[in-house]
Amino acid sequence: MRVEIVAVGTELLLGQIPDTNSQWLGERLAANGIASHFHQHVGDNHDRIVLAFRTALARSDALIVCGGLGPTQDDITRAALAEVMNVPLERHDEIVEVIRAAFSSRGRSMSDNNLLQADVPRGATIIPQTRGTAPGLICPLGLKVIYAVPGVPYEMSDMFDRAILPDLLERQREAGETGVIKSRVLRTWGASESALAEAVGERFEELQLGGRVTIAFLASGIEGIKVRLTAKGNDDADATALLGVEELAVSALIKEKLGDIIFSVNDESMEEVVAALLSSHDATLAVAESLTGGLIASRLVNVAGASAWFRGGIVSYASQVKFDLLGVPEGPVVTGDAAEAMALGVRKLLNSDVGLSVTGVAGPDEQDGQVPGTVYVGLSLGEGTTHAALRLPGDRARVRSYAAISALDVLRRALQSSR
Amino acid sequence: MRVEIVAVGTELLLGQIPDTNSQWLGERLAANGIASHFHQHVGDNHDRIVLAFRTALARSDALIVCGGLGPTQDDITRAALAEVMNVPLERHDEIVEVIRAAFSSRGRSMSDNNLLQADVPRGATIIPQTRGTAPGLICPLGLKVIYAVPGVPYEMSDMFDRAILPDLLERQREAGETGVIKSRVLRTWGASESALAEAVGERFEELQLGGRVTIAFLASGIEGIKVRLTAKGNDDADATALLGVEELAVSALIKEKLGDIIFSVNDESMEEVVAALLSSHDATLAVAESLTGGLIASRLVNVAGASAWFRGGIVSYASQVKFDLLGVPEGPVVTGDAAEAMALGVRKLLNSDVGLSVTGVAGPDEQDGQVPGTVYVGLSLGEGTTHAALRLPGDRARVRSYAAISALDVLRRALQSSR
Repeated sequence: MRVEIVAVGTELLLGQIPDTNSQWLGERLAANGIASHFHQHVGDNHDRIVLAFRTALARSDALIVCGGLGPTQDDITRAALAEVMNVPLERHDEIVEVIRAAFSSRGRSMSDNNLLQADVPRGATIIPQTRGTAPGLICPLGLKVIYAVPGVPYEMSDMFDRAILPDLLERQREAGETGVIKSRVLRTWGASESALAEAVGERFEELQLGGRVTIAFLASGIEGIKVRLTAKGNDDADATALLGVEELAVSALIKEKLGDIIFSVNDESMEEVVAALLSSHDATLAVAESLTGGLIASRLVNVAGASAWFRGGIVSYASQVKFDLLGVPEGPVVTGDAAEAMALGVRKLLNSDVGLSVTGVAGPDEQDGQVPGTVYVGLSLGEGTTHAALRLPGDRARVRSYAAISALDVLRRALQSSR
Repeated sequence: MRVEIVAVGTELLLGQIPDTNSQWLGERLAANGIASHFHQHVGDNHDRIVLAFRTALARSDALIVCGGLGPTQDDITRAALAEVMNVPLERHDEIVEVIRAAFSSRGRSMSDNNLLQADVPRGATIIPQTRGTAPGLICPLGLKVIYAVPGVPYEMSDMFDRAILPDLLERQREAGETGVIKSRVLRTWGASESALAEAVGERFEELQLGGRVTIAFLASGIEGIKVRLTAKGNDDADATALLGVEELAVSALIKEKLGDIIFSVNDESMEEVVAALLSSHDATLAVAESLTGGLIASRLVNVAGASAWFRGGIVSYASQVKFDLLGVPEGPVVTGDAAEAMALGVRKLLNSDVGLSVTGVAGPDEQDGQVPGTVYVGLSLGEGTTHAALRLPGDRARVRSYAAISALDVLRRALQSSR
């Protein structure tokens, strides 16, 4: 059972809105073990919609079409469906009544163009609307099928869960296809995609367990590299077991070759991991930031409940602020000593258990004789204050983003090793 | 010239990441008057990538392929290109040298799988990499062409602007498609898309100048609504003139109906506008942030040259930090008075000309008897300290982001009116 998603709407082609529907549907299909090999976007043009449907029918078993079912001139999905099915559109009086009732219950008069939403290709069945005015359609084409739903995300998701998913699962059972797909995402910081690929490379075949498991590396920009494990089992328990064993094996291999670079095994963000560690240590945190300019603090407060462990921070962008507020000795501020003084200073000033700091050169110019990308992370924790020296790649914005996650990673490693 | 975008990556089909590349490319193509009728997503599977390419070549003149050019086992776009072109892959020594140099400049050793990125289908030309290790490819197929770029957004966008767009425009000229398209983006903060549409609505036909100009409203999430004006002229001067007159007319109409909501007319960000205003006032700024947790400061330091006017900030997340460091009187901290005390406090503490502050409730719970979305912006400037009371919609993350840009907008309006 191969499902193709076709999202209809010129606004998608013009980049005016993101296509969140295909992403949502892709995730739901995958979670239910239904394969999806292609997505398409097509604009509000009859011939091109028909072409997109025919292209999809040639390579997939079922189509989910989102959009173009509304009442305006550019809602032409119904007519395209009728052409592909080679049947006429027929107006359904019971849908007319539902639409009329929806308008009168809101005290609004209905313009005639709304009646277009009651037109149904002959042979199609209806997915009744609950929240909007346009019903969805289930259009059989021999052994294949096209589901059409409105493009409004909450109408689309409601119809998918209520009508499309049960129908797809039933078709899959009838076709004798079984199995459950599950996936898990390991997140790493501090290694390149190629280093990760190499770490698992020589055992790559073996790790795929005869095709039952796939491993993919997803570069996630400033958030590091994700390692996605996807297992196909005979049933839920089988898939879970495959995934569990795979995670152990892959994690061990990566740790052996590259060290402690996996910071989460369930797709948690770096700040969520740090938050959980601080909570388990019952420790509060304050941060002093120079080149990151508040990025670290703003990531930390994204975690719900941050007020339990986050005191606040100092953005000491001007050197004088480092000297006056944080007690950094006057002199060069892009040094390990300055980072340590900042961490200790903010810990005292904000009365926290842990102080974390970053100083460095974002670029494009040198500072204190240091090249762009030079970054020092200071950490004051328990009796000790230490620093890490880093060299980060990229332009101004990337150096700053990398510095923020790198500093959080320094804290993560320290908290994990002091458990 | 019809361009089809093919985004390669199983993670797109599984809904693990949004396809921001197709949206960005769609917007850029439209802004340059290049038609795009279809987008596709396809997974990391050789036969299906080949099928997607062939499908696209049958209905479009040019393909932009994003993704699958990296060094790992699931980066198979190069091999699919070679099959569609019916040519072998050839290793290019000069690319090998660039990749080697990139690794050694970062002090890292290079694993052999990185050399896959030096494989080029015979007859293709290279788009040199500037930021990553994988070069882009320009693959001619008769009169048609496939451009392949990495899926990493900043590598993709760099190669598009540098190599793909100029090549497409040249092909369009050669095909005798004439006319010059220019566009300009007005950015607004503080009005809804429907309010903007209504403001220009009754003169919408007239404003399109007989089809020479199009007006589009682009909801840009936490960055407000963009108004994109696109003019098609006979030549460069004609398009520039059309655009200039259109901008004057649309700006005047919006200002008359909705007030001073346009903060930039050349797509500058809010912080760039604020930076220019501070520089022209020769004034320095310090910020005190509560619920925004460093977001405002981190936006400000993204502007090149920020050290000339940005002193730094205090992230006073815990109330005690507001009392101790900023001199806010003990008591409720989500009030206009507290916001003013924070603005004045940070201005004194960091010795700046202007103090800007934000306090409020991000949610999900109430604080000080105030509902989530309640936000006060404090501003201390010249002799006066004032505050603005706002009520912002959305969840925790959105309230925080809206609060950050709203605070900068308060500063913008104050600086503009004190000129």
